Amino acid sequence: MKIIVIGAGAAGTSAALETRKVNRDVDVTVINTEGFPEYSRCGLPYAVSGHIPKFENLVLHDEGWYDKFGKVRLMLKTEVTEIVPDNNVLKVKQEGGATRELQYDSLIIATGSKPSTPPIQGLEKKGIFNLRTIGDGKNIMNAGSHGKRAVVVGAGVIGLELAEALHAKGAKVTVIEFLPNVLLAMVDEDIAEVVKNKIEESGVRLLLNTKVDEAIGKEKVEGVIATNRATNERITVDTDILVLAAGIKPDTTLAEKAGIALGPAKAIKVDEHMRTNIENIYAAGECTEFPDFVTGASVRVGLGTTAVRQGKVAGTNAAGGNATMEHLLNTRVTKLFGLEITGVGPCSEAATKAGMKLIIGKVRGSTLPEYMPGGKEIIVKVLANEEGRLVGAQIVGEEQVAQRINVFAAAILKGMNVGEFSMLETCYAPPIAPTWDTITIAAEAAMKKLRRK
Amino acid sequence: MKIIVIGAGAAGTSAALETRKVNRDVDVTVINTEGFPEYSRCGLPYAVSGHIPKFENLVLHDEGWYDKFGKVRLMLKTEVTEIVPDNNVLKVKQEGGATRELQYDSLIIATGSKPSTPPIQGLEKKGIFNLRTIGDGKNIMNAGSHGKRAVVVGAGVIGLELAEALHAKGAKVTVIEFLPNVLLAMVDEDIAEVVKNKIEESGVRLLLNTKVDEAIGKEKVEGVIATNRATNERITVDTDILVLAAGIKPDTTLAEKAGIALGPAKAIKVDEHMRTNIENIYAAGECTEFPDFVTGASVRVGLGTTAVRQGKVAGTNAAGGNATMEHLLNTRVTKLFGLEITGVGPCSEAATKAGMKLIIGKVRGSTLPEYMPGGKEIIVKVLANEEGRLVGAQIVGEEQVAQRINVFAAAILKGMNVGEFSMLETCYAPPIAPTWDTITIAAEAAMKKLRRK
Repeated sequence: MKIIVIGAGAAGTSAALETRKVNRDVDVTVINTEGFPEYSRCGLPYAVSGHIPKFENLVLHDEGWYDKFGKVRLMLKTEVTEIVPDNNVLKVKQEGGATRELQYDSLIIATGSKPSTPPIQGLEKKGIFNLRTIGDGKNIMNAGSHGKRAVVVGAGVIGLELAEALHAKGAKVTVIEFLPNVLLAMVDEDIAEVVKNKIEESGVRLLLNTKVDEAIGKEKVEGVIATNRATNERITVDTDILVLAAGIKPDTTLAEKAGIALGPAKAIKVDEHMRTNIENIYAAGECTEFPDFVTGASVRVGLGTTAVRQGKVAGTNAAGGNATMEHLLNTRVTKLFGLEITGVGPCSEAATKAGMKLIIGKVRGSTLPEYMPGGKEIIVKVLANEEGRLVGAQIVGEEQVAQRINVFAAAILKGMNVGEFSMLETCYAPPIAPTWDTITIAAEAAMKKLRRK
Repeated sequence: MKIIVIGAGAAGTSAALETRKVNRDVDVTVINTEGFPEYSRCGLPYAVSGHIPKFENLVLHDEGWYDKFGKVRLMLKTEVTEIVPDNNVLKVKQEGGATRELQYDSLIIATGSKPSTPPIQGLEKKGIFNLRTIGDGKNIMNAGSHGKRAVVVGAGVIGLELAEALHAKGAKVTVIEFLPNVLLAMVDEDIAEVVKNKIEESGVRLLLNTKVDEAIGKEKVEGVIATNRATNERITVDTDILVLAAGIKPDTTLAEKAGIALGPAKAIKVDEHMRTNIENIYAAGECTEFPDFVTGASVRVGLGTTAVRQGKVAGTNAAGGNATMEHLLNTRVTKLFGLEITGVGPCSEAATKAGMKLIIGKVRGSTLPEYMPGGKEIIVKVLANEEGRLVGAQIVGEEQVAQRINVFAAAILKGMNVGEFSMLETCYAPPIAPTWDTITIAAEAAMKKLRRK
């Protein structure tokens, strides 16, 4: 049985390695345009900052490992030019080679996503980068170190992680965001505000609600011209490098050409087995969309966590097994300028748009009991529907934030309501957490509002 | 409506403060033998070590606060000598005063527990302490600082937290434990072993499987004589102070005299409303027992977390409201010598004793992805029943352990099985956690064993 996986990212590689757990006799090939097997894209900002000493450290296993231990054939620097579903054939072209055809029994599409290019004039200049590949990361690192000026377009997770990395390397960083606050795809505006304040304290300059119109300079970028969307004021920011982190979009070119159906979010539509509309073709990761567990809306897959889980399911099924992906909770986290920022479930806006009448519990607390020195403030925001069932949560603070969101993830998945959650026995010890953890108090705050209704 | 609470610990104080949330007109009195209102007993070791600068910091609110904001009457240094249920009367005696009677409509017993005294000869000597009260803590601190030798009897949570505190103050500490390992009421022996090794690395001496026979010395303790239970070897350990931390027992003296029924664990039996067998008398906290959520066995309440939750329920019901305590998960944690140690649900032995055939998943992992510098090892052990339902978990590691156990607490409470848990979407980011968190991998390990059966 021949299985081919297009894409060696988190989804594709997870899928390929999983196939052999179902059936040791499968012949599995992973095709990748880049010259590396799987590496952590999410780790790129930490290699730019130097916290991870070498970009190559991000590569999870070297090529030899796949051959020897993974029993997976890698075809790197290879482009798939066409999928021909009727013949179960792929047309591929290795760097410097001729186009040839590969036969498959099952195909897994894990082409990931590509950067969205915002409508900015002058992007053909030198000194302008995306952050998507190891190559991009190296270019940015070389161009944006001590004493240089850098402009990052986009205050989402990637933009801000990169801004922090460049700031850590001694660059003078300006982040320009179209929307009125940072991280609005991840958290509500009140939580974003806490992050915004922390970024501004750090010395990174933030221009919010601002549209970048043009990259200026001769051959090389020398600055950007932007417009404040509220005041229409025009701003010029001088810079040595410009990094575009204004979002990504699913890479569906190949799939569409092959007649694979997209969903309402313009990504490949898959069922819970990761099947596309064409038999024997599966898809997983950022090129797909999947129903949000809470709202039911079909949403783009944007997290490594989801990608590896989908990959596992796709790999199992492609090899003749039977696995399903039961939910997409969108449990997410990042760490920026000393703050952990995390969420699960839809943000308030998405939940409201889906027709929910939200009940919100929001509480400031400490990671430690009052009498214990060293506790840090955390803010916990709980979202419940009108029956009091938990549908989302967001937490921000300096420490011990991330694992707290996972408690909400388990609770949301199992349909827990705010009353139950408020009485959850969380662990307590003076150097660890208070007897009533802030997560339970936030749920209690929501419960009280529910009762008052 | 007159409500009286006996005991100003976590359960009693929570109960008293809760009554007024149900009914602002209740007249509520808290009676305490000690001279302080509620303080954190769990914080005592951290005041002994000096990490908390003053013992008085452990007091949550001063006396004036109760009067002014809590609207709770405090009677400190007051002993209840008898409960007369037929007349709804308490006999009380304030320090230096005469015995008088108080009338109640509802009574809440929160008398807590008292130290068990192990059968050791010579305990009448000076220099021998328990660690139960602020007074005890001050005495230990004064007697056991730099250069002094200390013996702690009992390697449970309190004994070890105190050993660490005395060690931090420069004392030369020996801990003597009757059982073959440390913390066996909290974790399984394999997890205990990790803690044991860490303690031994710290320079604290551990004598396990060892029975203390006698405290020797003239007026003041000068040493202990102990016997290794395996070899029968007699050991003498010289010491300046001896601290007894060999367990506690429910303080049920008053309750028993009043005809209040105990349960199989020899603590006050309460239903889910915290009602005792006598109408209008409730009980909460360490003087009670309650069914374990997983095994159904009636177990002693030993955690501050449970005490405050029970207190809240007792207070609500005593004031005419309606609340229930739905479960006792026994989510527990401590931090010792740089390790966080945590568990939820029964240990393997208790689960097996309750008739369960356990399936265990145990995994070593890191708090961070492999490529990210600075990750710390954590060990996660998952306990499932023969159908694969999660019934317990234990985790040990240097960081980020505590909140991970809370994820299991929510999952156990909602009946999650290991397969579901293995696919739980935990949050991922390079500086935070791997895409497959060690908690999900441990559940997967259990699931694989289940399938193999």
